[in-house]
Amino acid sequence: MGVDLKSQIDTALIALFVKSTKNVLSTMIGVEAKVRKPDLRNDLQPTHDVSGIVGFTGEMTGSVIISFHEETARSLVKSFTMEDYDLKSDDFADAVGEICNMIAGNAKKDFGIDAGISIPNVVIGRDHYVTRLRDVPCVVIPCVTEYGEFSVEVNIKKVSPVAV
Amino acid sequence: MGVDLKSQIDTALIALFVKSTKNVLSTMIGVEAKVRKPDLRNDLQPTHDVSGIVGFTGEMTGSVIISFHEETARSLVKSFTMEDYDLKSDDFADAVGEICNMIAGNAKKDFGIDAGISIPNVVIGRDHYVTRLRDVPCVVIPCVTEYGEFSVEVNIKKVSPVAV
Repeated sequence: MGVDLKSQIDTALIALFVKSTKNVLSTMIGVEAKVRKPDLRNDLQPTHDVSGIVGFTGEMTGSVIISFHEETARSLVKSFTMEDYDLKSDDFADAVGEICNMIAGNAKKDFGIDAGISIPNVVIGRDHYVTRLRDVPCVVIPCVTEYGEFSVEVNIKKVSPVAV
Repeated sequence: MGVDLKSQIDTALIALFVKSTKNVLSTMIGVEAKVRKPDLRNDLQPTHDVSGIVGFTGEMTGSVIISFHEETARSLVKSFTMEDYDLKSDDFADAVGEICNMIAGNAKKDFGIDAGISIPNVVIGRDHYVTRLRDVPCVVIPCVTEYGEFSVEVNIKKVSPVAV
């Protein structure tokens, strides 16, 4: 707990996620995302209402969690799919997962290392918590759009290649 | 939606998870798990209060979600760690994640194929939903212990190897 995680933040990695988030929102959803200053998240706080979780394997470990307020998620999905899905429908969850997959996948392309990403799991439920790796900085990238705010939480680190 | 997922269930794969779950609970937690008949889960139902999510990559895709009632999770963690952690503590989430990691990792060892698993994410929150891959059977393995019930949901499939 006394580890100085702040000094371990990989700013180049965070920049890839900022770039990817802006690109995906602009090209795939038609929405401009403004990004506020990324910051370290220290504690287990409730996440927003809708979270997409992408796990990393191979030469990266950890996860990226993209978390939306309900109404922001609904509006972004509507802009992305042209459909107004019910929040409890599979189609809504699929669309949120696809947005998260594109953001994580686009950033991963530029890592230059051999990492795998899992198919996103989408969690829906008010005030749920999603836990993180404690020995890796969890960097929150706050994003603002015309439909409201969401956050991209990057909680991954490089590992030495191992046999799987 | 009309796909016959039941015929796609890989019973040998499910058997590996049954075996792994029983082994991990018995050897690592000191608790006997009885397993009821695995069944297909069709719809997006609320999950229990505490869920561990392990994503698969490489030659498998999808995820395994192990989901506990709050009190069952607390009792199992207590038996595993000899500590009675607060449900909102990082230590509690870490212990749940470790139990899920052991169950998924032990099953994966016997797959005989090159799959990666992500570090588990643990979700805490009453009545949250965790979405699944719709084109892959989601097989629920209901488990009963002296501390209550939990479920292991296997929602993974083999994929052709691809460059990552």
